[in-house]
Amino acid sequence: MGEGLTHVDAGGAARMVDVTGKEPTARTAVATGVLRTTAEVVELLRRDGLPKGDALATARVAGIMAAKRTPDLVPLCHPIALSGVTVDLAAEGAEVRITATVRTTDRTGVEMEALTAVAVAGLTLHDMVKAVDPAAVLDAVRVERKDGGKAGTWTRPQDR
Amino acid sequence: MGEGLTHVDAGGAARMVDVTGKEPTARTAVATGVLRTTAEVVELLRRDGLPKGDALATARVAGIMAAKRTPDLVPLCHPIALSGVTVDLAAEGAEVRITATVRTTDRTGVEMEALTAVAVAGLTLHDMVKAVDPAAVLDAVRVERKDGGKAGTWTRPQDR
Amino acid sequence: MGEGLTHVDAGGAARMVDVTGKEPTARTAVATGVLRTTAEVVELLRRDGLPKGDALATARVAGIMAAKRTPDLVPLCHPIALSGVTVDLAAEGAEVRITATVRTTDRTGVEMEALTAVAVAGLTLHDMVKAVDPAAVLDAVRVERKDGGKAGTWTRPQDR
Amino acid sequence: MGEGLTHVDAGGAARMVDVTGKEPTARTAVATGVLRTTAEVVELLRRDGLPKGDALATARVAGIMAAKRTPDLVPLCHPIALSGVTVDLAAEGAEVRITATVRTTDRTGVEMEALTAVAVAGLTLHDMVKAVDPAAVLDAVRVERKDGGKAGTWTRPQDR
Amino acid sequence: MGEGLTHVDAGGAARMVDVTGKEPTARTAVATGVLRTTAEVVELLRRDGLPKGDALATARVAGIMAAKRTPDLVPLCHPIALSGVTVDLAAEGAEVRITATVRTTDRTGVEMEALTAVAVAGLTLHDMVKAVDPAAVLDAVRVERKDGGKAGTWTRPQDR
Amino acid sequence: MGEGLTHVDAGGAARMVDVTGKEPTARTAVATGVLRTTAEVVELLRRDGLPKGDALATARVAGIMAAKRTPDLVPLCHPIALSGVTVDLAAEGAEVRITATVRTTDRTGVEMEALTAVAVAGLTLHDMVKAVDPAAVLDAVRVERKDGGKAGTWTRPQDR
Repeated sequence: MGEGLTHVDAGGAARMVDVTGKEPTARTAVATGVLRTTAEVVELLRRDGLPKGDALATARVAGIMAAKRTPDLVPLCHPIALSGVTVDLAAEGAEVRITATVRTTDRTGVEMEALTAVAVAGLTLHDMVKAVDPAAVLDAVRVERKDGGKAGTWTRPQDR
Repeated sequence: MGEGLTHVDAGGAARMVDVTGKEPTARTAVATGVLRTTAEVVELLRRDGLPKGDALATARVAGIMAAKRTPDLVPLCHPIALSGVTVDLAAEGAEVRITATVRTTDRTGVEMEALTAVAVAGLTLHDMVKAVDPAAVLDAVRVERKDGGKAGTWTRPQDR
Repeated sequence: MGEGLTHVDAGGAARMVDVTGKEPTARTAVATGVLRTTAEVVELLRRDGLPKGDALATARVAGIMAAKRTPDLVPLCHPIALSGVTVDLAAEGAEVRITATVRTTDRTGVEMEALTAVAVAGLTLHDMVKAVDPAAVLDAVRVERKDGGKAGTWTRPQDR
Repeated sequence: MGEGLTHVDAGGAARMVDVTGKEPTARTAVATGVLRTTAEVVELLRRDGLPKGDALATARVAGIMAAKRTPDLVPLCHPIALSGVTVDLAAEGAEVRITATVRTTDRTGVEMEALTAVAVAGLTLHDMVKAVDPAAVLDAVRVERKDGGKAGTWTRPQDR
Repeated sequence: MGEGLTHVDAGGAARMVDVTGKEPTARTAVATGVLRTTAEVVELLRRDGLPKGDALATARVAGIMAAKRTPDLVPLCHPIALSGVTVDLAAEGAEVRITATVRTTDRTGVEMEALTAVAVAGLTLHDMVKAVDPAAVLDAVRVERKDGGKAGTWTRPQDR
Repeated sequence: MGEGLTHVDAGGAARMVDVTGKEPTARTAVATGVLRTTAEVVELLRRDGLPKGDALATARVAGIMAAKRTPDLVPLCHPIALSGVTVDLAAEGAEVRITATVRTTDRTGVEMEALTAVAVAGLTLHDMVKAVDPAAVLDAVRVERKDGGKAGTWTRPQDR
């Protein structure tokens, strides 16, 4: 661990960290999250998953679009060129599990893009179910794995 | 509870629900969430909370700005005129608790705006701590209370 | 017909027309357009219209979101509070017909929002079919009807 | 032609296609479209084309800016670094012909950026003439030519 | 004068001030600024002010569009419904004087929207002249007058 | 000096200049500006610079975010990948001096990004002080230095 936060300078001021000297390399990040609701609501989401049912598709599309908006939302993120994004939704029991995978060839990692895709897909599910379950909860938004860059591969430890 | 999702029509197609007939009324929504990290990282965030320390301020500002971007992010949300937004951060122990309060005088509620403020403040904290704690988790993003509109006041049930 | 364009002043300079004096009233606009491609491609779009097939949903969602972005795209459009948006897609033969309906209670009409929804839904279809039909064409993007405001109802004349 | 749409996976879910493995190369795309209105309106647009007349300039600028917004509008488009954009408008008879040329050095083509520039320039013209010709139509939005990338040059076939 | 800044609370945290209790009233704000460059450059801008010369039009359009983007740029500004925007440019001697007038019927004033229009029109002029005069300066961006709201009319004092 | 503006073609039409043929190189730009207000207001800004005081942090964050939005605001700017942004604020006497430093490795310079960061940080300060000093002025928004690219280093001449 470093001795301080990289996103603030010695005097405490926020900054976008200078990555000019880093090499562009292929990088991937996977993030996940889960919307906890009721079995009844998950059934509605799946039923809408039938022909022309757009509920899950809307959340997938929102997540993909949000990955691209990350630098507009997270103040100190670098704008980078994403080369691939997928958002998978698994609706089972009383929850919808969200997995986003983001790829780039650039100077910084894409874990924030993956986390943003998960969070906004989750918010979109929140929006669609809120009339029937205002108490739904978006939980466990976190990075599972990232590859590429000088740091190489990082995998989430079992105990966190 | 209705018999289906309001955001998809009988044929399953996504839509922005028609609220033309609803009256503009004063509405408030409160949402919360929590970033779970380590006590060491929380100490860094607080130290940066000293004079000129921008870490928490950056997350607060990001949350407020994100509330305004909600209709750009959540596909079926109505664009509405927010009349007040606050984002409070409480950094203690190994976590940062996030509370967003959003107000409007409009035809629909602002729970999505409050949830979006919480989620993006949380993502911004994620971004700032990720170099020292890549395993941080954004948890429990949920509505606590909403007032106004035909439905009146809703408070989160204890058991959810 | 007036004697000049409302969007430029006497000296020719572009401006956002002052509507401060107009009353907010309920208004609706319907616009349509058509993506012309091949029967084979329409078959692919429909097949993807089967369970979990997101092709048409993606275009619907893109159209709805674009309606909200209209003032960001069309320089002299007023930012207004949309109260409802639907985008319908009918894929038949060698084409997809797009219909957008937009509602508001505001000081100006929403035909530009309806046209923008149609255009961006059409561009999204273009994007999805371009690998199999780069020669697809978006045609006939036009207003069909608008209601509300001082001008009342306008319906497209048969001969245009 | 492939056997399916590239933008949806085997299960039908929308995705941003992974182009990480593709080489950045210089690419160009040209798209066109036409706003059909009346000779009288075209005369007004041209008159406003006199000194300080901003009507056509506003549409040109809107088209150029829209090319840059393409990934915000078209859900599955990659964000890419545009290296040049021009939008030409030819107002003659009862129509305005729109031509957009977009260049990049990146991993994917720029036909969507060129089509978006044409569509938004067309919508902006729609906006400026709608008070005098609500029946105007944006027609024939299509790709004329693209160069670069593995596929090389594609020119629109005469019969489409 | 109050005893502190309205945009931070008693504890110093940034917030979007709650205006829910204020009445919507018609409001106007006028802001100005000036780009100082050389007589030679002003001549170029004016020459480009001839038929089809888009230099000044581009700055006008950029200013109008920026007024609409104010809440996306200035973190604690309320999103409000603008009912009219004009941007005037007067190119004379070695400078271009910029004047923006913004109108609304809403709960807060529009001086930030007028200032933003001036600043972005000025930045756009900067951009257009920077190849020939990299030393140009945007000066004196300030509010001249505002009307409406509880405070009534404010006019800039002569000595500031 | 060239014989005309690079951003308009021979016929006067606005365009995004083609930089496809230029090499990506490391580039830096530094821009400055100053908000002139009163000593009393500067004291308030600094007092809010105490623990948890977000006033200056809000302006810093707004400036950094605005640098990333430059191509959305300035019509003919290329979208480029920023690799570092800092915004420094020095509040002394009756003014706040703003300095923005922007870095990239791309085909065009970043002086517009640095100027935009300064202007929006200044607008944000304007917003925060306007209730106590509506007569504040943003002055002297200008480029101080730029490095990189074919032109090499440019430093502002003493007499401008």
